[in-house]
Amino acid sequence: MSKWRRRRGAPALDDVAGNGLINRRALLGKGFVMAGAAGTAGLTSAAAAPLADAPWSLEVGGQTPAVQTPSSFEKGVVRALSNPNGEFRTSHARTPHQMLSGTVTPNPLHFTINHCGIPNIDPAQHKLVIHGMVRQPLEFTLETLSRYPLVTRMAFVECAGNSAGMFAKEPLQASVQLLHGLVSNAEWTGVPLSVLLDEAGIDPTAKWLVAEGADAGLLDRSVPVKKAYDDALVAIYQNGERLMPGNGYPMRLLLPGFQGNMNVKFLRRIKVINQPAYSYFESKNYSQILPGGKTWRFHFVMEVKSFITHPSFGMGLKEPGLYAISGVAYSGTGRISKVMVSADGGKSWGEAALQGPIHQKAFTRFVIPWRWEGQPAILQSRAYDDGGNVQPLRTEFVAMRGEASKPVTTPLAFPNQHYNSITSWGVDSKGEVKHVYS
Amino acid sequence: MSKWRRRRGAPALDDVAGNGLINRRALLGKGFVMAGAAGTAGLTSAAAAPLADAPWSLEVGGQTPAVQTPSSFEKGVVRALSNPNGEFRTSHARTPHQMLSGTVTPNPLHFTINHCGIPNIDPAQHKLVIHGMVRQPLEFTLETLSRYPLVTRMAFVECAGNSAGMFAKEPLQASVQLLHGLVSNAEWTGVPLSVLLDEAGIDPTAKWLVAEGADAGLLDRSVPVKKAYDDALVAIYQNGERLMPGNGYPMRLLLPGFQGNMNVKFLRRIKVINQPAYSYFESKNYSQILPGGKTWRFHFVMEVKSFITHPSFGMGLKEPGLYAISGVAYSGTGRISKVMVSADGGKSWGEAALQGPIHQKAFTRFVIPWRWEGQPAILQSRAYDDGGNVQPLRTEFVAMRGEASKPVTTPLAFPNQHYNSITSWGVDSKGEVKHVYS
Repeated sequence: MSKWRRRRGAPALDDVAGNGLINRRALLGKGFVMAGAAGTAGLTSAAAAPLADAPWSLEVGGQTPAVQTPSSFEKGVVRALSNPNGEFRTSHARTPHQMLSGTVTPNPLHFTINHCGIPNIDPAQHKLVIHGMVRQPLEFTLETLSRYPLVTRMAFVECAGNSAGMFAKEPLQASVQLLHGLVSNAEWTGVPLSVLLDEAGIDPTAKWLVAEGADAGLLDRSVPVKKAYDDALVAIYQNGERLMPGNGYPMRLLLPGFQGNMNVKFLRRIKVINQPAYSYFESKNYSQILPGGKTWRFHFVMEVKSFITHPSFGMGLKEPGLYAISGVAYSGTGRISKVMVSADGGKSWGEAALQGPIHQKAFTRFVIPWRWEGQPAILQSRAYDDGGNVQPLRTEFVAMRGEASKPVTTPLAFPNQHYNSITSWGVDSKGEVKHVYS
Repeated sequence: MSKWRRRRGAPALDDVAGNGLINRRALLGKGFVMAGAAGTAGLTSAAAAPLADAPWSLEVGGQTPAVQTPSSFEKGVVRALSNPNGEFRTSHARTPHQMLSGTVTPNPLHFTINHCGIPNIDPAQHKLVIHGMVRQPLEFTLETLSRYPLVTRMAFVECAGNSAGMFAKEPLQASVQLLHGLVSNAEWTGVPLSVLLDEAGIDPTAKWLVAEGADAGLLDRSVPVKKAYDDALVAIYQNGERLMPGNGYPMRLLLPGFQGNMNVKFLRRIKVINQPAYSYFESKNYSQILPGGKTWRFHFVMEVKSFITHPSFGMGLKEPGLYAISGVAYSGTGRISKVMVSADGGKSWGEAALQGPIHQKAFTRFVIPWRWEGQPAILQSRAYDDGGNVQPLRTEFVAMRGEASKPVTTPLAFPNQHYNSITSWGVDSKGEVKHVYS
């Protein structure tokens, strides 16, 4: 919050980079006046009181429900479904980032991918077994896990295939939801996996775990023991309440910063072993294919990334004036240290203000003021993390990781994995926002 | 998270206070082993693989919805309604803290109080006017506010009447939801009120605002200009999505740490004036009545407070063994600095571990391990904030503020306001948890 405190005598709206990017320091003081600036924000002068009463001020309102739901005027704020008729294949549900702000993804809108439908698990019957190279195999229930001292942290979860539409040779015309909706951010609460492993007493020569879910596919993934002792949780609450069914109810593995698929949902087994299991989802589906056809055996960390949510594809600018450019940044290796924004396709950059506190491996919201004067613009954000990693330009990324060899016609396709370059939104002179490569 | 990292060779489960409270440092290392300790947590040794398959592992699961909802096994996790039939009176909906963990209150379960029902506001028609002692009256819509650089912060909102059942001379037998459910915690995103006031240009002699809502009662409250320039927001997002209807959709005043009723919902007007308005809700309903019948004119800040959610009333302990005592602490003046816990009714105290980062004027989750050996116990938590404030004992509180002069038979009654003393949960030898005074 402190960045936003009023300070009298702060500088006026001086530009910090090309095409109208305003120094974020304007946000510190009185200088930032939308209504008074040339090209107003559509604010209008008001007449004095009394105000006219709207219809809803003239009658008693609606009843209070036991569980409240969004306004009927927000009924378009939903996840985008890849498999709306529930056919016998994988179902993806993407978060509508262009309609959200802040950093928390509300549970109803958290992205989900389920390969075999969503099991309806009775928590009284579900068990988690830890076995393999351990002194004493152990069995846990939701009730016994709930008795532990729990830890709470913010963390993003991102599918390795998020943003895969950007492997396309030509920019797909699609919303930030369809391009980047397979990442969400929540407060997770659970038991450190290290505590449970210490109870079972693992063999010091064991280097891997296999985590297995109770869905019909018994989805399993190999996890380094090192990660289990770093920051892995068996999560049993999501944003304060029990996990959503699609997010792994009643318990899931949470591996902050690691690819989503490894955060095994409906967790029923952790087997301690001394080599990876080379399961289906690590040897086929989530492999990273490199230019030349080679494949990285394992590539767990979701790398530093950001995207602009406001404005973004499909959100037209009605008129020239002052706007805020805002989005989310995150890194699977640590904290976001800086986000730079460009309004001229990368020719010049201004540093965005970050909303604190900045969490490890979690969304950080960035914002920078922008004066749009009706000229074409290309908006980009570029994230930096505290490990010294920098989000690549698209050209840099494609040189390292390649692009799709066949035409990609839909953002629902997965030509490859782990796409993390800069996204560019092109604004034309009418204020229309399109997806461009720059 | 760092407090929870494993550290080899950490001390074992040494007691830090009477009746089984364990030093929180046990959580830092290998010492904390629920399964291995005397009186286990109900953990059982497991057989080796293969596991038996549960029914939900043997069939394809359910379809992915556009908006996901909790598991059917969680259908009891709902708010408690004071007016379930929607009669023509105030409706309270209380948060089920005993069923939640972490710090975020999910939007569907955020507490609400509505005095005239919940208006169904069309955001395209709703306007906020700032007028009175200003250079230029201004009018804002949800769309124009959404164009501002927004700020995001965690904040609790608490009704001044929360916990009022504890003014009763005898402890009411009621859940933490019914006793303390009129407080919740969320991530709020909006425009600093100071920015909007600076745009309107307020008269330097103006000391107060009147904020007015668009509900049928046009609820209005006086707010010091000083608070507006401290940390007030016009909030337009709640936990990432647009505000819930009961929480003020499409926009509300957020005054972090001030009594809930002042955080005017459905905000339609801010009038800058030079004296308080002495409106109904500040001169009658939310007045603080002191012993002897005097009344504090204004008492805005919600004082330092905590309560234990796990275990709490109605959540029996099945068997002796290791448990975690956990709850939430918060202060309207700043950050929580410390939470002390007692298992012997205040004779001895152990310091709980706090889950960081610790936000200003927001929930902090505390936890301390506890060995229950089947003896009667009285569990208490006591919060301290960084302003040097300490949550009072009940006897201290009653001496200062009094208790109810007439019998109180229900936690839904409001004999007085601003109750913040320690809550005591009495555990009997059968593990039953009751509300006691101690």
